[in-house]
Amino acid sequence: MTSSELEIWKSEILSIGTEILMGVITDSNASYISDKLPELGIGNYWTTAVGDNVGRIVEALERGLDRSDIIVTTGGLGPTDDDLTREAIALVLGEKPVIIPELETNLRARFVGRTMPDRNMKQATLIPSAEAISNPRGTAPGWWTETNEKVIISMPGVPREMFQMWQDEVVPRLKKRMEGRDHAIVTRTIKTLGIGEGHLDELIDEYLDSQNPKIGVYAKTDGVHVRINALGKNHDDAQSVLEPMELSLTDLLRPYIWGYDNDSVPVIIQKTLQDRDEGLAILEFCTGGHVTDAFTDVDQASNYFRGSFIASTIDSIIGIGVPQALVDDHGYVSEEVALAMAEAVRENLSAEIGIGIVGSLGPNPVGDIPAGTVFIAISSDTDRKVHQATFPQNRQDLRWRVRNAVLFNLLTWLHGNPE
Amino acid sequence: MTSSELEIWKSEILSIGTEILMGVITDSNASYISDKLPELGIGNYWTTAVGDNVGRIVEALERGLDRSDIIVTTGGLGPTDDDLTREAIALVLGEKPVIIPELETNLRARFVGRTMPDRNMKQATLIPSAEAISNPRGTAPGWWTETNEKVIISMPGVPREMFQMWQDEVVPRLKKRMEGRDHAIVTRTIKTLGIGEGHLDELIDEYLDSQNPKIGVYAKTDGVHVRINALGKNHDDAQSVLEPMELSLTDLLRPYIWGYDNDSVPVIIQKTLQDRDEGLAILEFCTGGHVTDAFTDVDQASNYFRGSFIASTIDSIIGIGVPQALVDDHGYVSEEVALAMAEAVRENLSAEIGIGIVGSLGPNPVGDIPAGTVFIAISSDTDRKVHQATFPQNRQDLRWRVRNAVLFNLLTWLHGNPE
Repeated sequence: MTSSELEIWKSEILSIGTEILMGVITDSNASYISDKLPELGIGNYWTTAVGDNVGRIVEALERGLDRSDIIVTTGGLGPTDDDLTREAIALVLGEKPVIIPELETNLRARFVGRTMPDRNMKQATLIPSAEAISNPRGTAPGWWTETNEKVIISMPGVPREMFQMWQDEVVPRLKKRMEGRDHAIVTRTIKTLGIGEGHLDELIDEYLDSQNPKIGVYAKTDGVHVRINALGKNHDDAQSVLEPMELSLTDLLRPYIWGYDNDSVPVIIQKTLQDRDEGLAILEFCTGGHVTDAFTDVDQASNYFRGSFIASTIDSIIGIGVPQALVDDHGYVSEEVALAMAEAVRENLSAEIGIGIVGSLGPNPVGDIPAGTVFIAISSDTDRKVHQATFPQNRQDLRWRVRNAVLFNLLTWLHGNPE
Repeated sequence: MTSSELEIWKSEILSIGTEILMGVITDSNASYISDKLPELGIGNYWTTAVGDNVGRIVEALERGLDRSDIIVTTGGLGPTDDDLTREAIALVLGEKPVIIPELETNLRARFVGRTMPDRNMKQATLIPSAEAISNPRGTAPGWWTETNEKVIISMPGVPREMFQMWQDEVVPRLKKRMEGRDHAIVTRTIKTLGIGEGHLDELIDEYLDSQNPKIGVYAKTDGVHVRINALGKNHDDAQSVLEPMELSLTDLLRPYIWGYDNDSVPVIIQKTLQDRDEGLAILEFCTGGHVTDAFTDVDQASNYFRGSFIASTIDSIIGIGVPQALVDDHGYVSEEVALAMAEAVRENLSAEIGIGIVGSLGPNPVGDIPAGTVFIAISSDTDRKVHQATFPQNRQDLRWRVRNAVLFNLLTWLHGNPE
């Protein structure tokens, strides 16, 4: 079955508000909604943000009605003159908003003990083609507008109001509206490491042209992801379209795969070490806690994380147990010192595994060691290993790249050193 | 002068990538760019996201060329068949991409010691209307395309590549391109702390209706920001529109202001402590390095940051110098232990100022102390102070809120304890 044989409901998202357009806030509403649409078997093809300008909102709505089946708008439902979503929908449909007594009663109930400003009355209006979507968390009801088999769903811009309205009110209506439509979308993400985007593409070349399931390849901070999107008459059918592709790609990419879907490296490490009943301790000397932060930012990290020292002087690494002589003989940015750091922190905090990180951030080299050189040591009772790498001499880049390098080196090391 | 009297350069942002559209990632590129455009005197009126589909990218580009002066695209410049930005621009302009020898040389240089996959060659192409924008952080150069007095600026989707290309390459070109245009926008952000959005609104009520400069009030993670946007015939003119408003607002908000524009609390702390020649040491016992990470993520942090211990057991805080008796008498989640932690780490790492952070993350209370309670202690030779707060029992929220609380408590403490 190809995707063109099934008629997918096409949606687009329209975020309304000058704050979004000015970059004052990130549009988390749009990513929330676009993450939820595929579960309903709806394909999202456009996301647009416009400011509080009625002309441009009208233009976006007209365009959307032209090319999509559903438009989901957020924002512009407040009481002020800047809130123009209702006005724009009314203009596009050539209808006039009127006050609905029941909505007025609900609205006034929210102002008990306070005077309701007159301008709030527009939150009690509807046009003939629209019905209200109730908003338990705020004064602005949403609008569910139907026109020529198309739907405009308008929700408030405040994320907690929008999330609840989406979940409690919009999803049930959408499911009902879509009854009888015979399709579902299922997705699967394969996460790889140790292979570039271009090489991976070549490996799976024979599948890249597939229309259903569709394959996407994305370079991410935690490796290259392969996303499979499958379309079917229902969930099981979509699943049966997806599975053979997942098996084929898993076969081809096996040496590089470290996880699926929402897996993250810190979570996999947490689970692995907790299962093995082993503890981890870290001594950082150029990354200021950025590496430790990644390991501890998972639930139950304290089941395996034994602690870290974030050093900023040579004296303090010697204080933790790195022999002065090693520093004198090899310089502090060296394989030997990184290993001694890993061992010192492991001992100091009674952990089975120790990690030592030392580097020269630049701008000047440390002795013979060029700026940007970092040594990452991993040590246990039975194995010790040092990884050397050169990173950009830019603080944030270096911190981020070292963080990822440590995560992946430990993951690889754990694979190579089973319990 | 009102904004309609001046002809502003209109821009729109086009984010390209199915990942954005599917909600897999939040579009931080769009908010970054839209935050930067006003400084250049460019008004952003549309932000659109489309998937990796050449037809829809072409549609968005055509629409954009129709209504805007500049289109800024991100994404779709990678080497794979899914990366279609170059192809779409070529289609819109009716031109054919050709390999540029110089770009090929640069590209191959990034693959030294590795084979370059053939498909990467498309990253070395241009069309006649485009010139390359160099990308020091990745393989994909950007494209600067001009057509009929309009500009399409195409940058990679990887944020760290995009940010650097924007700053180093795009901004200078844009400034040059805009020379002679007779308008400028100047913005100023006043950052406050210790006052709510509603109360602040009331304080500056008389100015909120101003059209030029325009005032926006935004609640952010680091307090409430007041943003002033002023429009003028040139930079000086816009500046003269802005300044009286800035003075008036500064007068009204003085007790709450901690910074302006790009000021960040960690940078202000770094500067203050460096000037005072004082050092800071931290002992974290519930935040896993997240607080330390904030302090060290600024340039020259090592000029004042003396080190941290990230503890995960009571034994290790006792090892650093917290008296066992204090823990026994007061429980480890207590004012007394937080202060002892601040003092122990200060002594241990020879710092003038010590911070101790201890809390109960939940789900269960620790003794009488409800889950979510955190003690933040600051200690120096001359002063000691503990701040107690209750935070949500959600790991990421709590870490984030404690991080901000520590930053602001130290900032306030530094104000109250001059050198």
